[in-house]
Amino acid sequence: MAAYTKSMQELIGHFKDMPGIGAKTAERLAFFVLKSSNEEMARFSSSIIRVKESVKFCKKCGNLSEAEFCNICNDPRRDKTVVCVIEEPKDLILFEKSGQYRGTYHVLLGVISPLDGIGPEDLRIKELFKRVKEDKIKEVIIATDSNAEGETTALYLSKELKPFKIKVSRIAYGIPVGENMDYIDQATLIRALQGRHSM
Amino acid sequence: MAAYTKSMQELIGHFKDMPGIGAKTAERLAFFVLKSSNEEMARFSSSIIRVKESVKFCKKCGNLSEAEFCNICNDPRRDKTVVCVIEEPKDLILFEKSGQYRGTYHVLLGVISPLDGIGPEDLRIKELFKRVKEDKIKEVIIATDSNAEGETTALYLSKELKPFKIKVSRIAYGIPVGENMDYIDQATLIRALQGRHSM
Repeated sequence: MAAYTKSMQELIGHFKDMPGIGAKTAERLAFFVLKSSNEEMARFSSSIIRVKESVKFCKKCGNLSEAEFCNICNDPRRDKTVVCVIEEPKDLILFEKSGQYRGTYHVLLGVISPLDGIGPEDLRIKELFKRVKEDKIKEVIIATDSNAEGETTALYLSKELKPFKIKVSRIAYGIPVGENMDYIDQATLIRALQGRHSM
Repeated sequence: MAAYTKSMQELIGHFKDMPGIGAKTAERLAFFVLKSSNEEMARFSSSIIRVKESVKFCKKCGNLSEAEFCNICNDPRRDKTVVCVIEEPKDLILFEKSGQYRGTYHVLLGVISPLDGIGPEDLRIKELFKRVKEDKIKEVIIATDSNAEGETTALYLSKELKPFKIKVSRIAYGIPVGENMDYIDQATLIRALQGRHSM
């Protein structure tokens, strides 16, 4: 790799640290930076710093925000009595894109994962209980992933939320819309059967 | 997309402009930036600027360099009488990794491509002829790609280099080592047959 200059090697290293970026792609991206205009790359560079400086987490729901509370928590049209519990801020985008959900969110910023040493106290679960207690919440929809950690977290939350006597629901898992039955895995099929409803 | 803050939207936009990065990956990378430490991202950000400021092209061969001449042109152990002509600085890495080539390079910074309006005068071809004239070059190895533009460029160069009465060669195309014959395309097979040698 002696053929790269030191600064190029450093930049390739930075790209290689990113998720899903291998050695080849890191090289391609570094060459893209090299070929782009100075102005464009100055904007890119300061954009990275700006994200780190300006983006905080909403004090109520844990969503990304540049102010104390996020756009959704501040929106008077959103139903504040319904809270959808998600793992990461990016899960929220999926719900927002659907345009069908008018409640609020609660971002856990992770899942319970004993193998990684992450327990309920490491997540934003206390904050959820506080909201349920203080904000007259009527329903909590748990939308954690359907893997082992997501299910564990969902079970834990539903158990801990029992005493509050509110509605606690889990989003439905089943066959994706438009999917050919030939390609459905066993686990999904079992969930789809369990979740069947009368017609 | 109202759920993203403005600075996150900007950063996602920057990543999306990069080659091979789609909307999903751009989001993932922006979240990676958000989750990384401030120090790490400050280093990443300044690494981009440093590449733009420090990396130049070697005055002789067109390779990346932080000085007037690149490491390879400055290396007294390299055979300065053999020049391998390549399209882009990154092609050089492949040759260097093989560890088998001890000559120098000449980077064209592109290929002849009439459809894109790129003619010989837009490439570092004058500089190649100047080197051949002045630097006692004995052999020029043309290693442009085997697509239409690469072949056109190779033909043009071999024709124009005729008057200099030096050896001009083209690297061999054929069956890749370890490849199963079942998966070889027609064009490669034809090149492999044309390039056959007695055993």
